[in-house]
Amino acid sequence: MKRTFASDNYSGVHPEVMEALQKANQGHAPAYGADEFTAKASAKFKSLFGNDVEVFFAYNGTGANVLGLSSLTRSFNSIICSDLAHINVDESTAPEKFLGCKLITITQRQGKIYPEDVEARVQRVDDQHHPQAKVISISQSTEYGTVYTVDEVKALSAVARKHRLYLHMDGSRISNAAVGLNQEFRTFTRDAGVDVLSFGGTKNGMMFGEAIVFFNPALAESFLFIRKQSMQLHSKMRFIAAQFDALLSNDLWKRNAEHSNRMAKMLEAQLNQISGVTVTQPVNANGVFAIIPPAVVSALQQEAFFYVWNEKISEARLMCSFDTTEEDVMNFAARLKKLLAR
Amino acid sequence: MKRTFASDNYSGVHPEVMEALQKANQGHAPAYGADEFTAKASAKFKSLFGNDVEVFFAYNGTGANVLGLSSLTRSFNSIICSDLAHINVDESTAPEKFLGCKLITITQRQGKIYPEDVEARVQRVDDQHHPQAKVISISQSTEYGTVYTVDEVKALSAVARKHRLYLHMDGSRISNAAVGLNQEFRTFTRDAGVDVLSFGGTKNGMMFGEAIVFFNPALAESFLFIRKQSMQLHSKMRFIAAQFDALLSNDLWKRNAEHSNRMAKMLEAQLNQISGVTVTQPVNANGVFAIIPPAVVSALQQEAFFYVWNEKISEARLMCSFDTTEEDVMNFAARLKKLLAR
Amino acid sequence: MKRTFASDNYSGVHPEVMEALQKANQGHAPAYGADEFTAKASAKFKSLFGNDVEVFFAYNGTGANVLGLSSLTRSFNSIICSDLAHINVDESTAPEKFLGCKLITITQRQGKIYPEDVEARVQRVDDQHHPQAKVISISQSTEYGTVYTVDEVKALSAVARKHRLYLHMDGSRISNAAVGLNQEFRTFTRDAGVDVLSFGGTKNGMMFGEAIVFFNPALAESFLFIRKQSMQLHSKMRFIAAQFDALLSNDLWKRNAEHSNRMAKMLEAQLNQISGVTVTQPVNANGVFAIIPPAVVSALQQEAFFYVWNEKISEARLMCSFDTTEEDVMNFAARLKKLLAR
Amino acid sequence: MKRTFASDNYSGVHPEVMEALQKANQGHAPAYGADEFTAKASAKFKSLFGNDVEVFFAYNGTGANVLGLSSLTRSFNSIICSDLAHINVDESTAPEKFLGCKLITITQRQGKIYPEDVEARVQRVDDQHHPQAKVISISQSTEYGTVYTVDEVKALSAVARKHRLYLHMDGSRISNAAVGLNQEFRTFTRDAGVDVLSFGGTKNGMMFGEAIVFFNPALAESFLFIRKQSMQLHSKMRFIAAQFDALLSNDLWKRNAEHSNRMAKMLEAQLNQISGVTVTQPVNANGVFAIIPPAVVSALQQEAFFYVWNEKISEARLMCSFDTTEEDVMNFAARLKKLLAR
Repeated sequence: MKRTFASDNYSGVHPEVMEALQKANQGHAPAYGADEFTAKASAKFKSLFGNDVEVFFAYNGTGANVLGLSSLTRSFNSIICSDLAHINVDESTAPEKFLGCKLITITQRQGKIYPEDVEARVQRVDDQHHPQAKVISISQSTEYGTVYTVDEVKALSAVARKHRLYLHMDGSRISNAAVGLNQEFRTFTRDAGVDVLSFGGTKNGMMFGEAIVFFNPALAESFLFIRKQSMQLHSKMRFIAAQFDALLSNDLWKRNAEHSNRMAKMLEAQLNQISGVTVTQPVNANGVFAIIPPAVVSALQQEAFFYVWNEKISEARLMCSFDTTEEDVMNFAARLKKLLAR
Repeated sequence: MKRTFASDNYSGVHPEVMEALQKANQGHAPAYGADEFTAKASAKFKSLFGNDVEVFFAYNGTGANVLGLSSLTRSFNSIICSDLAHINVDESTAPEKFLGCKLITITQRQGKIYPEDVEARVQRVDDQHHPQAKVISISQSTEYGTVYTVDEVKALSAVARKHRLYLHMDGSRISNAAVGLNQEFRTFTRDAGVDVLSFGGTKNGMMFGEAIVFFNPALAESFLFIRKQSMQLHSKMRFIAAQFDALLSNDLWKRNAEHSNRMAKMLEAQLNQISGVTVTQPVNANGVFAIIPPAVVSALQQEAFFYVWNEKISEARLMCSFDTTEEDVMNFAARLKKLLAR
Repeated sequence: MKRTFASDNYSGVHPEVMEALQKANQGHAPAYGADEFTAKASAKFKSLFGNDVEVFFAYNGTGANVLGLSSLTRSFNSIICSDLAHINVDESTAPEKFLGCKLITITQRQGKIYPEDVEARVQRVDDQHHPQAKVISISQSTEYGTVYTVDEVKALSAVARKHRLYLHMDGSRISNAAVGLNQEFRTFTRDAGVDVLSFGGTKNGMMFGEAIVFFNPALAESFLFIRKQSMQLHSKMRFIAAQFDALLSNDLWKRNAEHSNRMAKMLEAQLNQISGVTVTQPVNANGVFAIIPPAVVSALQQEAFFYVWNEKISEARLMCSFDTTEEDVMNFAARLKKLLAR
Repeated sequence: MKRTFASDNYSGVHPEVMEALQKANQGHAPAYGADEFTAKASAKFKSLFGNDVEVFFAYNGTGANVLGLSSLTRSFNSIICSDLAHINVDESTAPEKFLGCKLITITQRQGKIYPEDVEARVQRVDDQHHPQAKVISISQSTEYGTVYTVDEVKALSAVARKHRLYLHMDGSRISNAAVGLNQEFRTFTRDAGVDVLSFGGTKNGMMFGEAIVFFNPALAESFLFIRKQSMQLHSKMRFIAAQFDALLSNDLWKRNAEHSNRMAKMLEAQLNQISGVTVTQPVNANGVFAIIPPAVVSALQQEAFFYVWNEKISEARLMCSFDTTEEDVMNFAARLKKLLAR
């Protein structure tokens, strides 16, 4: 199938990741994470985040988020997040079903939530009748393609500490965020006060696999049992580990994210030049959100498929991947111009 | 790592499966199963089981089992299974947590359960105080490497029908069972009265991925929601589908299972010739269970690692894979003989 | 303890209910609802709502709500309700934990939600990634002491039917609503399109016990199992049934509700005459909400305790009970006047 | 209805309890346990068990058990109990649904389980694939009307400590056990190593209400939230508390239990004199189990209803209550003799 702007999970697997899978496919390896590939990939994570972190692998983003949150909550807790958070609108009711918790939502602004809104949601503390707030969960980059600055993360962390909440980060597109911020991973996660991180692999060129990183190892105490129980333990673990090893080698994560972010900026620039099209969100990572006249949407999707994010205002979501080409961008813009010119 | 007899998930990925992954890695593909690879693999399943079946993919065996059972039960139900069933002893409490159901166990005989024992467990029907039996779940091949005959499956199905229960089959090693029985898949599943089947891929040469096959499509009505909620929906689905396509092409499933089953028979034959060693279970599939004198276990594990299944009687579990060689078997037997001769 | 305006559950048991408990305490009675008291009370409900309804008893309001909703949902569903709904803010995370569902909230207006807001929440139908809306839940009377008119309930029911949702009513104060509306129970429940009703007993003079009424008996199919599993099945059921029998005899429910509603209106009238005090909500039932200057709150609570509902605006919630007296109201108003006059 | 031997929940409410309910029905009282009745009843429990225990009230036995166990477990744990334990066979799947845990059963002997059997069930410790044993739960008196001796409880407690398990006691009939043992409550609970106790009220003359007693207060840390979430928090709490206050005043608990136990012994003595009837279990509390020829069961149930506990061997369960009379016993025995003489 032709390349699209539908999602960064429409793209396939980066060749270097595929090569790592091939190389890992030699002989036998202990199952369930007791293999050397897992040890090697874990070491890579420790070199990024510090030797005392705990890192585990899971299958997918929903799994990684639920596993991380499960380590932070009990069933009578609530989790404060954006109303557009993936955990709130795109993971079915996995969080509610698996955790028992309530998600308390804040109307996002450019995909983000802010300390004052969070604080207003910390209500009725110690009141047995009311869900007890325990976690702030943010997505980095956000579902709107924006990125929290280091200071924004720190400000949320400060609120979390003040009210004895944990700070969870859904980093399914964390590499795009790191590139967007031009910061080390650690700077805007651990050092900014994040407690648990979902570190995304699939959307940045892997076949499958996400990591959960605990900056406070004590929080990971029961993780192995939780992961197994939640059906997120892979037997042939080496094949997740080898992919992460590749992603974290030779800056592959960075090259991929830089590329997709650059494609997004190029697309933004092109769209900004087309009258009748309005880019709606700052482009900090690999997604571009733009109002495209409804009359041309269908024809434009023939050129390169994308999803209409908000039908009411005909806002399209255009996601760039590691394999998006400059030509893809230019052709898309050209086609859009032509369609609007009719 | 050297090849072992530890588990069929210590082995890697069959080259033909790896090749299929490579081939699937072209351009973009719709996520979450709306791709042509998924359509093609589904068609392969339909050609095996009938055009009216519904088939879905999940990440792992625990996921496949829980998803299938979830479609058959409500939280006040119970599931009748062997005390050694994977769902009972090797899936943490995933079934209880996700389904809410109780597992009612029967002491297995050679890994199997029998109609009269099942019937004795169907108790207090319609009594609101008591868990209401709803499913019989069997493993094919069993955790003890044995295989239910077609008639045995039919007899359990008859009991299920009599008491309005469903019959679920955990087929994480179903290819080994098919070869062991020398029967078409359909004969001992759908045609024998099974309602829902977990069809294993990982243990027969895949990297990851299991299928859930519904022989009564009505039972699959809410499956998509259940799968997503249970964190078993893969985004880049083509990479599970392509593997199943490869497994079901050119009889790869059969070649792999025939080989591993043959290696198990060869191993059994070798062990039978060693005095002091007792094979404890019929070898119908790819596993051999044998009592090996405890004094030599540790040294033997150096030759080729394996797990002691039952420490009390020093019963070892020796699993053969698609990549087990005749030399592996002969070396293992030779080493064991030597160790016992000291 | 002196009478208060704290809550209608601060009051005790109506003497006629207590007498019924005494009378029911003769000899033995079958447990778990197979007794004649349960049969008699059920018949009373059927005479109110129709012979084909199904009625069951539970311990408390949270239980009744969760049981009713449990009969209407599967775990991947969502429930649309007011942001102030008891199920959303006062039942811990019982709905999420027991049902697995997400609650989708609408900012209430005078305690109510309206069809257009509900419709905006029915999103992404059949999208496996998104919680699937299945129920609209409203409280009658509302948490703000207001009452949905018959037409308002019908309008919500019409939206429910249009989108294949169920309409659930939390009637923990349904008697107050009936009196407020001056309508038969049936008119604004079953005949207005409600599917399942929590019929409150405790807040209208009972010691414990709530009823769940199914207007569509098919929805009650598995109720007995769900109730037992959710720990809401009382063994000595006659003692809930006898209370409901008393409540539904000689219009006790109505006398109690008329009285408490009348006390609320009297209180409202008094407060309206006090400058500096603002009644914030229409008084349709037995609750009065009023802004009371914060400086006098504490002293006024000495006269008769009440809760500050909204601290930000110093909005008090003043609940009247079957045992509130005119003197209680007049003394409270007099004391408030005096405090403000200082 | 005529008195029966069906169950101790077929009986009503003891007059002294009913009187306490009347007396508690004066004026208003704070809801949810902040009332003076709750304080007074809690003090009674503390005088029995020690000032540092934590005690809470719940609605029913299933609730009390699940709440207590919920404080001891996480969802990947297992609970070891008798195969006849109320939590295993008479509470639907409430434990599985609410706790997520697996119940591991031991074939009871005279209703009891023993240390060696428990130890054999503590398997695969720290193995992520296997449910992790965390609690031993025993019923006192047992479902078979027998009573664990102090030494038997201590022996189980020793095993619990050895394997870092908790010891939970389902004391829905704990007063009968205390009388049967002729021991203080504390001797065979706290002092024998029990961690959490369900203290039964309903079956010993109360209308509704059970207590959960934590001997290690740290275990009760989140209890209030768990109770509310599990729908077991009563609003008009004074009416549970007042009953317990009555039960623990003037040795009412003891008088009731002594009486029902004495009636059981009398019944046992009578049955022992009837040829063709075999008492099957030691009579330590208020239940008598006896094989009664099936031909006379139905006619005998006309005299005084009872349940056939085990249909296969026609074993009847005959429960005595605080209101069982000597005449009831003698008439029952006489009628049985007459029926067998035909």
